[in-house]
Amino acid sequence: MKFSLIQKDAASKARAGVIETGRGQILTPIFMPVGTQGTVKSVSQEQLAERIKAQIILANTYHVFLRPGLEVVNKAGGIHKFINWDKPMLTDSGGYQVFSLSAIRKIKEEGVSFRSHLDGSKIFFSPEIATDIQRTIGADIFMAFDECPPYPCEYKYAKDSMNLTHRWLQRCITRFNETEPLYGVEQNLFPIVQGSVYKDLRIDSAKFIADQNMPGNAIGGLSVGEPHEQMYEMTELVCEHLPADKPRYLMGVGTPENILECIALGIDMFDCVMPTRNARHGFLFTSKGIINIKNEKWKHDYSPVDDLFTPEYSKAYLKHLIKCNEMLGATIASIQNLSFYLWLVGEARQHIIAGDFMDWKKQILPIVMNKL
Amino acid sequence: MKFSLIQKDAASKARAGVIETGRGQILTPIFMPVGTQGTVKSVSQEQLAERIKAQIILANTYHVFLRPGLEVVNKAGGIHKFINWDKPMLTDSGGYQVFSLSAIRKIKEEGVSFRSHLDGSKIFFSPEIATDIQRTIGADIFMAFDECPPYPCEYKYAKDSMNLTHRWLQRCITRFNETEPLYGVEQNLFPIVQGSVYKDLRIDSAKFIADQNMPGNAIGGLSVGEPHEQMYEMTELVCEHLPADKPRYLMGVGTPENILECIALGIDMFDCVMPTRNARHGFLFTSKGIINIKNEKWKHDYSPVDDLFTPEYSKAYLKHLIKCNEMLGATIASIQNLSFYLWLVGEARQHIIAGDFMDWKKQILPIVMNKL
Repeated sequence: MKFSLIQKDAASKARAGVIETGRGQILTPIFMPVGTQGTVKSVSQEQLAERIKAQIILANTYHVFLRPGLEVVNKAGGIHKFINWDKPMLTDSGGYQVFSLSAIRKIKEEGVSFRSHLDGSKIFFSPEIATDIQRTIGADIFMAFDECPPYPCEYKYAKDSMNLTHRWLQRCITRFNETEPLYGVEQNLFPIVQGSVYKDLRIDSAKFIADQNMPGNAIGGLSVGEPHEQMYEMTELVCEHLPADKPRYLMGVGTPENILECIALGIDMFDCVMPTRNARHGFLFTSKGIINIKNEKWKHDYSPVDDLFTPEYSKAYLKHLIKCNEMLGATIASIQNLSFYLWLVGEARQHIIAGDFMDWKKQILPIVMNKL
Repeated sequence: MKFSLIQKDAASKARAGVIETGRGQILTPIFMPVGTQGTVKSVSQEQLAERIKAQIILANTYHVFLRPGLEVVNKAGGIHKFINWDKPMLTDSGGYQVFSLSAIRKIKEEGVSFRSHLDGSKIFFSPEIATDIQRTIGADIFMAFDECPPYPCEYKYAKDSMNLTHRWLQRCITRFNETEPLYGVEQNLFPIVQGSVYKDLRIDSAKFIADQNMPGNAIGGLSVGEPHEQMYEMTELVCEHLPADKPRYLMGVGTPENILECIALGIDMFDCVMPTRNARHGFLFTSKGIINIKNEKWKHDYSPVDDLFTPEYSKAYLKHLIKCNEMLGATIASIQNLSFYLWLVGEARQHIIAGDFMDWKKQILPIVMNKL
């Protein structure tokens, strides 16, 4: 993997770059749609590539491990062939889901014992196992196995957890170096900065992660309930200590506003379920502002959902579909929200390159965050 | 509307034709996907037109009347503009849903009082009201308001019901002739033959319907639980008494086998929820046979769902999606089944024109109806 910086913004820490992977380029800053179980909910791979213009999508290791299971993905020739997606993919390590979905879990130095949220069966994940699983899944970028502490979190717990994540990282790297990609395409391991909302821990963690000299670095444990200002503060601090010549990935963030603010702080990659989850509930991001399509005010609005992304379907029709719980409603709304997110980061990139990113951000945010 | 017969089969009563509507041609025999609430479940209008190659789709008057309601459809400029579909559409009269969905209903000479299956509100449909509603919806073809008797049905009930349907038809025609299309495109009213499974009633009804000299004729009250042989017998009998120079529409039919058999009996148009409903349950029609994708045998089958219609997705992936209840599963399966149905009637048409329809039917049926 190679990361090239195209342009640094003079008025902020925003950057425009290009990540070269074994499956093609990713233009940064970028938003990555979340394809939890090997599908970005409600849209097809064709819609993702051609309408939404996704350049890279995620899959969740924990979910893919449970269903369809590693044997199926491996025999298919890896996750790309299995789901018919030939552009880059990223898998998380499973750590986040182990902590958020599993009611019963036991964390030890060796790894985490937990029970499947589907059938209660016992599972054990360790840094080595999470690495092997991600080799088998075959994403272009995969994540180190970490503990994602909750918010709020006591200082001592956050520090111990961070140190465990660091020790687990070294085991991930060792295992990564001992193994090879299974499907003939390069894989890249990204380590994850933790440390909750404690500045000294975040700095320590960022330095530790930077020292590993991996091809990209991630920031985890944010957007877990803390105030936005604290998320921005931690992100800014961590970015200062992560190498400038590697892509920086802020995990699980966020609203359109969060994304633009964090691009200004030096983040290059984002993922979030918000555009697809909100879509299914009729909550839309558009180039003209935010729409709750269930609202009665749209009943007789026959103008397009969004001239830019969904010009062929009216607000009145989408309202009808969402109200009737018709699948096409979720599809149109998901195409709308994901297209908006990809457009937003693409516009951000163009304005970084043009040198007017901060002016554009100041002008666009009140428009797109305005509740219509 | 104009119907031209291109070819009559020598070995059966099958016909190939062209229906010219105000919104373009329909090549017959044709299958019409059902878009109950103004959307064919799980697929987009783009997928319908480009992948499935639908030439005409249905909407249900009863459902559209309830949601989004006539005011919305009217202000949108009719159903085509509302849903963004510029090819022909057909609406049923609401009669079938009044009888199948509404628990409480009262049939009188004037019309039917019933309660909405959604909120229990009182509704009254008459031939005049059903005609006015279908003028407002704006489909290219619309259906006379009829009573669809259940199966089995006593002779006396069937006869009285048929006569009521005939009287209602004359009121529909009167209202139709008193009114104009609202959106500048020609509309056509099709009457419906009833008479349950009684030969004399079916003949009487077919003659009565033929005498109305409408641009096309439909056969209702079949595929409601009677044995297939009885359905074929009634269809054959009715086709003999319906004019050859008008399209014949067999409502609510059926399996691929039903469709090929009824094409051989002289039917030109079909609709059925089977391809979309079965798709959502993982039951697939393919060019190589019938597949229950939930079956364990497909877990490691990485070959395409169907080389002809869904070459980009494997059986193993579709099985995974359906098992996880992911919307993309319903979409792929619906594209598959509807593409298959449209392919089947298109192939039938080609073989009628080529003169070998019955030979082809004998050869293709064991293949496509074979359980894989």
